[in-house]
This record gives sequence, C-alpha cells and structure tokens, in this order.
Amino acid sequence: VVPEAAPAESPAVFFLSDYGSVDEFVGVVHAVVYRLAPGVPVIDLSHRIPPFDIAAGSAMLVRCAPHLGAGVVLAVVDPGVGTARRAVAVETAGSTRAGPRWLVGPDNGLLTAMATVLGGAVRVVHLEGARSTFDGRDVFAPAAAHLATGGAPTALGTDIDPASMGAATPGPAPGPAVVGPEGPELVATVAWVDGFGNVQLDIGPERLDEIGMSPGDTARVWVATSPPEGVPVRRVAAFAALGAGELGVLVDANGRVALVVDRASAARRLDLVAPDPVRSPGVGHEVRVARVRP
Amino acid sequence: VVPEAAPAESPAVFFLSDYGSVDEFVGVVHAVVYRLAPGVPVIDLSHRIPPFDIAAGSAMLVRCAPHLGAGVVLAVVDPGVGTARRAVAVETAGSTRAGPRWLVGPDNGLLTAMATVLGGAVRVVHLEGARSTFDGRDVFAPAAAHLATGGAPTALGTDIDPASMGAATPGPAPGPAVVGPEGPELVATVAWVDGFGNVQLDIGPERLDEIGMSPGDTARVWVATSPPEGVPVRRVAAFAALGAGELGVLVDANGRVALVVDRASAARRLDLVAPDPVRSPGVGHEVRVARVRP
Amino acid sequence: VVPEAAPAESPAVFFLSDYGSVDEFVGVVHAVVYRLAPGVPVIDLSHRIPPFDIAAGSAMLVRCAPHLGAGVVLAVVDPGVGTARRAVAVETAGSTRAGPRWLVGPDNGLLTAMATVLGGAVRVVHLEGARSTFDGRDVFAPAAAHLATGGAPTALGTDIDPASMGAATPGPAPGPAVVGPEGPELVATVAWVDGFGNVQLDIGPERLDEIGMSPGDTARVWVATSPPEGVPVRRVAAFAALGAGELGVLVDANGRVALVVDRASAARRLDLVAPDPVRSPGVGHEVRVARVRP
Repeated sequence: VVPEAAPAESPAVFFLSDYGSVDEFVGVVHAVVYRLAPGVPVIDLSHRIPPFDIAAGSAMLVRCAPHLGAGVVLAVVDPGVGTARRAVAVETAGSTRAGPRWLVGPDNGLLTAMATVLGGAVRVVHLEGARSTFDGRDVFAPAAAHLATGGAPTALGTDIDPASMGAATPGPAPGPAVVGPEGPELVATVAWVDGFGNVQLDIGPERLDEIGMSPGDTARVWVATSPPEGVPVRRVAAFAALGAGELGVLVDANGRVALVVDRASAARRLDLVAPDPVRSPGVGHEVRVARVRP
Repeated sequence: VVPEAAPAESPAVFFLSDYGSVDEFVGVVHAVVYRLAPGVPVIDLSHRIPPFDIAAGSAMLVRCAPHLGAGVVLAVVDPGVGTARRAVAVETAGSTRAGPRWLVGPDNGLLTAMATVLGGAVRVVHLEGARSTFDGRDVFAPAAAHLATGGAPTALGTDIDPASMGAATPGPAPGPAVVGPEGPELVATVAWVDGFGNVQLDIGPERLDEIGMSPGDTARVWVATSPPEGVPVRRVAAFAALGAGELGVLVDANGRVALVVDRASAARRLDLVAPDPVRSPGVGHEVRVARVRP
Repeated sequence: VVPEAAPAESPAVFFLSDYGSVDEFVGVVHAVVYRLAPGVPVIDLSHRIPPFDIAAGSAMLVRCAPHLGAGVVLAVVDPGVGTARRAVAVETAGSTRAGPRWLVGPDNGLLTAMATVLGGAVRVVHLEGARSTFDGRDVFAPAAAHLATGGAPTALGTDIDPASMGAATPGPAPGPAVVGPEGPELVATVAWVDGFGNVQLDIGPERLDEIGMSPGDTARVWVATSPPEGVPVRRVAAFAALGAGELGVLVDANGRVALVVDRASAARRLDLVAPDPVRSPGVGHEVRVARVRP
C-alpha cells in the first residue's frame, strides 16, 4: 500500500498554455519566474492546448485540479490579448485537501471552472500592469512568481467582484436519459480526445446506471458518421478486458465515462477525426448511447 | 580538460513514458511527485515512446543508463494497464559508478534490460496499491517519490523473486559474420532511428572488425527496399568526413554501429521509412553489410 | 503594478538545441548537468530548432537574451560535430541588468550574436576535452555545469582571441526606404515565423516610421507568391484591432515589426508556407511594404 501523502507545503507554479513546444515562449516564462522566485519550481501541465481553445484549456485545468499541490496556477489561452479583457489573479476557497490557492491568467472564462472545482473564487485581483502582446511573459509570470513567494496581492492590482469574472464556456448540458424506440438511451457530448484516442464524454458513471448499463452489459453508440445500426459497445472495468478492436466504455482516470479501444484509438474506430476549425478534433461531437442488443 | 565528476548524492526521478506531450499526463505525474517529494527533481528522458512500444522504451532506458545519476527511474509503457501484470519496484545491484538504484514501472519487460545493465535486479517489490487506468499517476509516481526520499520498500508491497520478472523483449540475435558470394558480410537489425534519421544497428564496432571493415574502408549495405547492387557505404569517425549525401557507418555516441548521412537522414537515404504499425518506423528492419567494392 | 524584480543571484543553465523532443538527448543532458551541478536548474528554451539551422538558433538566443537571469547558456546546433570547429565557452561583458554571464556551445556562429547583445565577448575559452558525436552530453553539458557552479574557466581549456570567434550568420541588411512608383516603400526579410503563424521581419518600428506608416495607416505588402496588387495591411497596436482575416502589422513582444492576423496564421494568409530545405519554413523570404492605398 502506498503511504498517504502529507500535503506538501512547498508551493509550485503549474503552467498551462497554448504556446506550443517549438518557440521559446514557454522557456522565457520559466526564466522570468525563476528570476523572481528562484526556489519555486514551474511544473508544465501542457502547452499543446489548440491555439486559442479556451474550452480545451479550461477542461484540462479541471481534470488536473485534484492532483495539484500548493501553489499558483499560471494559465494562458488568450485570444483577446491586447483587448479590454482583464488580467486577473483568482484566490480560491481551498478545500479539505491541499491544492493551488491562486489562479493567474486572462479573465476570459479559462480559469472559472477550475476556481469552482477548487472551492470557488473568494477574491479576484485585477492585474493592472502594462500590457504587451506577450502577457504571459510580461504580466502573468511576474504575478504568479509574486504570489508563489507569498507576496501581497494588493501589490498587483485592485480587488474586483468575483461575480464579475468571465463565465466558463458552457458545455452542452447532458439531457436526461429517455426510453427511446429501442430501449433506454442517453445523449452525451465528447469532452476530450486524448493522445491515445480515448474519447471522454461529459458524463459520469451515474448516467450509465440510469440506463441500466452495468459492467459487462452491452449497448450501441452513434456519432454523426456512424452507420444506421450504430457501433456495438461493452462496459468494462479495464482496457484489457476488450477484444482486439472492440469498442468499450469505462470509467476513466478522471472519473468520467470514456469510449475506448484496447491499445488503439477509439476516436479512429468511431471516425471521430473530422477536424473542427475551432475546437480540438472530435471534441463537441454528440454521442448517443442506447441499450440495444448489439 | 573537463574535470571528472564526483557522483552526485542528490537523487532525482528519471521519467520515461509513452504519454506524449499533448495531454496533461506528464504534468500531473510531475505534480504528484512534487507533492510527495518536493526536493527531488523529475528529469524527463522522453515521453514520445511510440504508444505501447515496450521494446522502444526498453532500448531507450538502456541507452540512458550510463548517464544517469543517483535516484529512481520511473518508466511507464504499459499496454497491460488494468490486467494482472504486476507493478514493481526493482532494486539494482549498482556498479562502480553511481547510477539509479531503483526502477519503478510495469512488470512487462520494460525494466528488465536496464536492470541488467545496472548490475542486475537484487530485489523486486510487488507494488500492491489499488489500480486505476492511470497507474503512472496513482501507483508508480507515489512509489517513485517514496523511494527517492529514502522510504522503506516494505511500505510499498511484498518482495517477489527477481527471477520472476517479465523478460525483456528479445531482439533478433545478430548472426555471425560469414563469407558471402562477394566477400565477408554480416547481418544486423535496426535498433533505433533517431530524430535526425541516424540508423543505429544492434551491433558494436567489433562486428565491423570481424568483416575487416576499418575506418576509411568501404562496403555495401542492403535493406528490404535497396536495389540489387546495394548502397555504397564508408566507415568514418565523424559525420563531417562524409561527402554530401554519402552514406557512412560510424560508432555512435552509445558505442553502437550506426548508418548516417552528414546533415541529412540516413533512414530516408535508405528508404527506411515504411511505417510499421507496431514498432517505431524503421526499427526491426534487417540490414546486410558486405565488404564489396562499391 | 507588478513590482520590479531584484535580479536573481541564483544561476540557471538555459538550454537550447536542435535535439527535438522524441529522443532522449535533452533528458540525458539534463541528467549530466544535474549530476555535476545538482542545485542548478536547467531551463529549456527550445529543442525544436530545425536540424542544423544555426541562424534560427542564433535568432532565438537573441530574442531570449533580455529575459534570462544569471547563469550559463548551453546552446547546441552543430552541423560540424566531429570537425575541427572549436567548442567554446564565451564570457560576456554583462550589462546594466543581470543576465547570463557565460555561453557554451560550438564556435560556428551560433553564440556570436547573443554575445554581442549581452555586451560583447570579453573572454573565450577553447574547450579542449575529448570529442564525441554527442558533444552536448560529453563536452558542453559538463562545461556548463562547471561554470554554473562557479568553477574556474582555466580548468576547461585555454583562452583564445575573442576576435577569432565564428561570425554570426549575416542576415540580409535591410535596405533603405525608397520612394517607389506608388509611394514610399521598404524591403525587409522574414526573420521568424512562430507557431501561431506570426511573421516577424528583420526590422524595428523606426522603419515603418520612415515610410510614414503610423498606427491606423494602411499599406500593401508583397511576398514572392503575392498577386500583383499585393495584400492590404493595416498598422495596429494589438491583434484584436484587426477584423476577421485582416492582415495587420504591429510591433511584437520582441520590439520587431511583425505581420499578423488575429487568431489565425499570417504565414498562411500570405502563402508563406513553401518549405525551404535549409531554413525554417518561410524564413528568409523578402517582403516589400509600400504605402499604397489598399
């Protein structure tokens, strides 16, 4: 048994962006934080958020939230750089377990859902420093370093009403389970396709329970490109329970429902590859799951 | 002259996986290790192992082994996540020079060859914690942090017989040099194609000596797609000794024989680009080298 | 207002290369530095310099220079590995603000422009250690670790004349503004295309002033693939001031003139995508900007 962790007191800066890995943007931000807060490590969550895809960045922050320790989240996905959109530092309420206390980034909805997951925003400071076309380097990194070393928030700007924060991108609200022509069914939406091709839906396992789909049970799923009869799917507890090429549904490591194939891409199995110019490939597609004998 | 290094006493966690760089998997593992072992840096070896390619991960670990300092190797290439394959921590015998003492990961052959290179497995602990579909985060990272901070192995699980460890993927055993119709020749196998297109073979320079191929000597090589007369090749000591587009053979920085082109891709020069669905592109191809006048 | 930073005393190693992110090269260099200098963090600037593109590496170092703190720059873009080209450590004069004191890498022009930006080379040490085909691991990393921990330069090799350093790749010297058939115009060269498709030119904003192009003013630009009438462009202060798909020119975060499109790729808008086998895609293209009513 792995011993339970004592929450680390040492703060880190957790860094997410759409800067990519080709240019020096990420490295320069690391250098700026190190100059100002040399004892605080910068831990990269990802810099491969699709350019300007606020919803994908927000979703990743929510997935990461339960696993981060003390410190500051520095997140930059910022199509509005240079506009009137505000730069903010958000203090979260904390929770029973340790986690990041501050979130720093643009006030465009990127941080809002993570703040909610971390207990809610109890304070929002409007970062009033000079702007550039590289706010990550010039505004957000210095603010994150300042907060990570215990600096006073009042040195960064003035308090604003937390209720005025930019709203999180509203996902489609999953509808209730219904009894369709062929049996109980539900409709969900693709929330994430990871690098292995696993297709995470925006629902938890209780939605599978609603349509009476327990581990071992079978059903069919449809996406826009599916044949009329749909694609057979079986609920399993682990990838390895699936046969070669078989589509499965399981509760993934984030506690969400995911469509998967063992050692292969479920996104490709479902032809979920059509690029969407705005969102990550596959994300946003509607998926219907019905308890039909495959 | 660069002064000789005193072996560092400070442990690190050396992290290799097939997680890729798009998703947050690597960052979350860093965050988990930092929470549990804030003073221990995590050094990324690579996370671009082809998905589930245990042999490629094993080969990279072997190449890295001589260059790592004290600490723990955390390696995850794990097609069997969720199956009965065991999670293990392997203690190595050490050697005359400092190096990692523990290897943590799945017991699927990934760690076996590296353990041998590091002096052999003297102890294997079966990690008995709860499983998830993200063992890297939930099982391996906490175990690595625990061992890197000097925690007792007994807290992680029970000892098992080192001889029961998963076998390393057996590579093709290079055959002996023979005298072919056109002169002395040998057959080797492509072990690695790096990002520059250098083609490392699974043989050391003593095999070139066997066919009497000294620096400056010429020969011909054949892969599956080569023309009947083969491709001329010259043994050199450095890339820069080659003419534009000329194929060379040299002893690379790992002490292995490699086919190279100066400032260009030898893999492309040899048409070694056909993707193999299971292994890394080009890896596993057979290469024949014969002392034929080009 | 973000408080002004006190220059950090803690040195770092700032690491740039063309090693890519697939192989273990970067990780092994990190491991070597950590063994020799465990208290010194290695900050990656980028490892995705196009293979052997010295000019692209040099340009990135120059862009990074104003933002780095104390320490050592370790830069490896090295088509001449194994040749007589020297390995060097360059001590810079420093400046009014803190920055890296030493630059370590090949003497092939890669470091020269950065040394100039950092106040000029006051001392150059010829690194006389044994060579391999992986000098980054075997020569440069140990030297950088040695200098970052305050080791004596004399232990690394012998002093050579700073004036003998390899010359920086000369960029095309931007010509003077002229009055063309249709009005004042200038000719510049593409210096960098970043991952968002922003096209940085090799000129500062004073060149726009020369042709009387102030914020809000319009002009036309031509690249090799442009239609005869050119492409309309408007000078703006921020991406967000542009309409959908509109081409803009602004002063970017490096203080250079850049062609941009809001939330889209200016390189693609200008058809600047033709790959050049030697340089980064798009880099080196000539751009003509003329004050013609669009």
